[in-house]
Amino acid sequence: MVDDAAITALRALLGDRLSTGASDLALHGRSEGVFQDMPPDAVAYPCATGEVAAILRICAEHGVPVVGWGAGTSLEGHALAPRGGVTVDFSRMDRVLRVAQEDMYAVVQPGVTREALNTELRATGLFFPVDPGANASLGGMASTRASGTTAVRYGTMRANVLALEVVLADGRVIRTGSAAPKSSTGYDLTALFVGAEGTLGLITELTLRLQGQPEAISAATCAFPDMAAAVAAVTATIQSGIPMARIEFLDAAFAAIFNRQSNASLPEAPHLMVEFHGSARGVAEQAEAFGEIVAEAGGSDFRWALRAEDRAALWKMRHNAYYTARALYPGTDPLTTDVCVPISCLAQAVEETAAEIAASGIPGPILGHVGDGNFHALLMPRKGDRDDWARAKALAAAMAERALRLGGTVSGEHGIGMGKTGYMQAEHGAGWAVMSQVKRALDPNGILNPGKLLSGD
Amino acid sequence: MVDDAAITALRALLGDRLSTGASDLALHGRSEGVFQDMPPDAVAYPCATGEVAAILRICAEHGVPVVGWGAGTSLEGHALAPRGGVTVDFSRMDRVLRVAQEDMYAVVQPGVTREALNTELRATGLFFPVDPGANASLGGMASTRASGTTAVRYGTMRANVLALEVVLADGRVIRTGSAAPKSSTGYDLTALFVGAEGTLGLITELTLRLQGQPEAISAATCAFPDMAAAVAAVTATIQSGIPMARIEFLDAAFAAIFNRQSNASLPEAPHLMVEFHGSARGVAEQAEAFGEIVAEAGGSDFRWALRAEDRAALWKMRHNAYYTARALYPGTDPLTTDVCVPISCLAQAVEETAAEIAASGIPGPILGHVGDGNFHALLMPRKGDRDDWARAKALAAAMAERALRLGGTVSGEHGIGMGKTGYMQAEHGAGWAVMSQVKRALDPNGILNPGKLLSGD
Ligand SMILES: Cc1cc2nc3c(=O)[nH]c(=O)nc-3n(C[C@H](O)[C@H](O)[C@H](O)COP(=O)(O)OP(=O)(O)OC[C@H]3O[C@@H](n4cnc5c(N)ncnc54)[C@H](O)[C@@H]3O)c2cc1C
Ligand SMILES: Cc1cc2nc3c(=O)[nH]c(=O)nc-3n(C[C@H](O)[C@H](O)[C@H](O)COP(=O)(O)OP(=O)(O)OC[C@H]3O[C@@H](n4cnc5c(N)ncnc54)[C@H](O)[C@@H]3O)c2cc1C
Repeated sequence: MVDDAAITALRALLGDRLSTGASDLALHGRSEGVFQDMPPDAVAYPCATGEVAAILRICAEHGVPVVGWGAGTSLEGHALAPRGGVTVDFSRMDRVLRVAQEDMYAVVQPGVTREALNTELRATGLFFPVDPGANASLGGMASTRASGTTAVRYGTMRANVLALEVVLADGRVIRTGSAAPKSSTGYDLTALFVGAEGTLGLITELTLRLQGQPEAISAATCAFPDMAAAVAAVTATIQSGIPMARIEFLDAAFAAIFNRQSNASLPEAPHLMVEFHGSARGVAEQAEAFGEIVAEAGGSDFRWALRAEDRAALWKMRHNAYYTARALYPGTDPLTTDVCVPISCLAQAVEETAAEIAASGIPGPILGHVGDGNFHALLMPRKGDRDDWARAKALAAAMAERALRLGGTVSGEHGIGMGKTGYMQAEHGAGWAVMSQVKRALDPNGILNPGKLLSGD
Repeated sequence: MVDDAAITALRALLGDRLSTGASDLALHGRSEGVFQDMPPDAVAYPCATGEVAAILRICAEHGVPVVGWGAGTSLEGHALAPRGGVTVDFSRMDRVLRVAQEDMYAVVQPGVTREALNTELRATGLFFPVDPGANASLGGMASTRASGTTAVRYGTMRANVLALEVVLADGRVIRTGSAAPKSSTGYDLTALFVGAEGTLGLITELTLRLQGQPEAISAATCAFPDMAAAVAAVTATIQSGIPMARIEFLDAAFAAIFNRQSNASLPEAPHLMVEFHGSARGVAEQAEAFGEIVAEAGGSDFRWALRAEDRAALWKMRHNAYYTARALYPGTDPLTTDVCVPISCLAQAVEETAAEIAASGIPGPILGHVGDGNFHALLMPRKGDRDDWARAKALAAAMAERALRLGGTVSGEHGIGMGKTGYMQAEHGAGWAVMSQVKRALDPNGILNPGKLLSGD
């Protein structure tokens, strides 16, 4: 619980923008994941970095937990408040501060969403590539080291954050990185805060690398007789060095889901969804080379989306996959998974997963950013059915353990939050304790997002 | 000084591979930079991670400073031993442990040099792109976050290290990262050790991302009427999105230097040296688009290096620029500089630098990895001439301060070592103290490479 003095001080600072209303607390106590509700004691809506610093000074003084909140779309209970405290909601820090067109970067406040940023960039010929399915905030995306369909070409948030402004647990404000394309001046603090899930500081400003709109884009879906053939085509494509902008896998179940929701009329078979970026000639050449690989792997039924609106519809369908699947399995609660393995192990990982899911009787359509070796099964146990839940959890655990056995990772992009701390020792060994050492150095009283990512705190 | 008990323990561990011979100490007390000699008390030559861990346990117990040593080519006194202690020379840990061809990574010991790795990879169709001018060790390159001519396309060591094995100050061995292409599982410890200059741990194994040999490569030099025209061509090329594999600048003085040393017969004018990677058609298209930009900027005199041996000669000439320039200015000692600015400020930064150098009377040819906004003036004060030295230092300081004013960084790739700690507060503000907090958390007694990168330690 937060003591009254802290609330009084925060209210003096923020006025109306400190909320303790029941609905607001409830809203900030929910997650997209499978976790119980864990509301904070108050929600703060800062408008500026100085306010965030003041909030942290007050919370530090009173030992109050502080949880950052972007769009609340994270999947591992990242932004829940298991120890109460103050949730700092960045929705009022939602301005694009600067677009440096020549230098191809943008400076944004953390509450700007990826879609809002790209809308703002529309006239510039530039875009920001990282695209998780949800319309997440850029502060949240940096904090989970998010990625999406285009990471195979443009990288994850790791590669696309140039610089940050961060408020530390004691209220100090620091700037990491710079607008220069590279630097060798000391520890890479930018990379330290990217993926830290709000446990080391709150991000109040981001400098993001932008990309030029390619001269030409084309996209397509193609179908495969079986999962192995589709994955073989992915592996061959990556190894051949075709600079894919997107290469996404979906299984037959997801093809069926898309058909029912989006009138897509895809063959109910495993698919790849791909996109090529480049010059007109370059795109044509890439598509041709990819076509040869697909044919060799037994794929067929290419459907091209050449007009911008057709491509937009295609990727919208892909981005909505999670919500669509939820809607089609009423009475279930989704358990998302998120493993990532070296490309050479992708076929084995996907096929063993699919076989285990089939044997379990739990619906579990599979899709993924397979160009990075990253895939998800969306497990659909029936709400409140203990046996279903036990089986779903066992499937998820088997996926994570297999990923580690194959030299991969238990999360390609969603992160750890409260959901995956149980795998951290297995994945990182003594490295996990090193993370706690870093945490204690920067947040000795453990007020920043306690109960997440780290051990026993 | 190191106490006798420590030396005895180290000798028991390493036998002959602990050296206290005068010539060995002298060799490890010198640097490529402008620093006084600072030899260690002993040099250790471990063969395996376990030995490195044992060395660190002994040194931790006795409070002995430990300095990592790769190839000793760093330019800011990084590997000197200002407090004595034990230098750990990784030259006997020089094996390529694994080349995972399908997954396009290699696992190497830290003493493998970049040239040795690429020689080993020759038959695989893969290569490791990062190429500082010197034949540096991969452990040293990771530790300085090195880059080179190809970073504009393939990134610096930041982007090319997938995973590490690191021995911490207390002898614990950790593994960071994995062979998966991406991960969101906690703090990015890999990025923390890359660029840490051996102050947080000793790297004993690296997993490095490899690239496929492009189907086609072509390279060229072209001349420009003046520096402004050359830099304008760079800016236009980067902004046009041509995926340059290399785009290097050299001024008229360097063109003259190359002519004298390599019979290059370049016009004595500012030049760009470029390389294109891709499919045969793609390379042709890139070259054509680049040609148009060059023509528009007033450039001319294209000389193509189409045969592999001609390209190798071209880049060898570039890589040897530092040694060549040294040889041509006998009686001088080079003071290297290494600023990096946003591309839009590159012209201003280069021109103001050139004007100041011209006014100073000190020779200072300029070249750089300008696709990244990174350039060097090689200042050539006469040995022992105080006035020359004062002017050279003032020029270097003006470059660094200008880079900061323009939103850039005081080191694009060489790092901080002992030479640039004086700029850290100006560049990082309170962030520099945060680096010290991280340092104290991982190395509370400050035994790892003391006197480098951080403040007052
Ligand atoms: C339908 C759907 C599809 C998805 N697809 C993808 C996908 O393809 N790829 C992917 O990576 N993820 C995906 N996700 C997960 C989610 O979108 C990402 O994790 C995203 O990065 C979360 O951003 P957010 O703004 O919602 O953050 P939140 O959920 O609000 O917060 C996430 C974490 O960041 C912290 N945080 C938020 N803002 C800040 C700040 N300013 N400073 C410090 N810490 C902060 C929070 O405390 C929390 O720990 C998907 C989710 C859904 C619901
Ligand atoms: C002619 C010339 C051209 C150059 N061109 C470039 C260039 O284009 N780009 C560029 O980035 N640099 C360049 N440099 C600088 C230099 O090559 C780089 O800094 C390189 O990364 C140093 O590697 P090294 O193996 O020589 O490391 P060293 O000089 O031996 O050590 C560098 C630092 O790393 C630490 N270290 C070494 N090995 C380890 C380890 N295994 N674990 C932990 N710490 C370790 C050392 O303690 C020291 O702090 C150039 C240097 C010269 C002489």
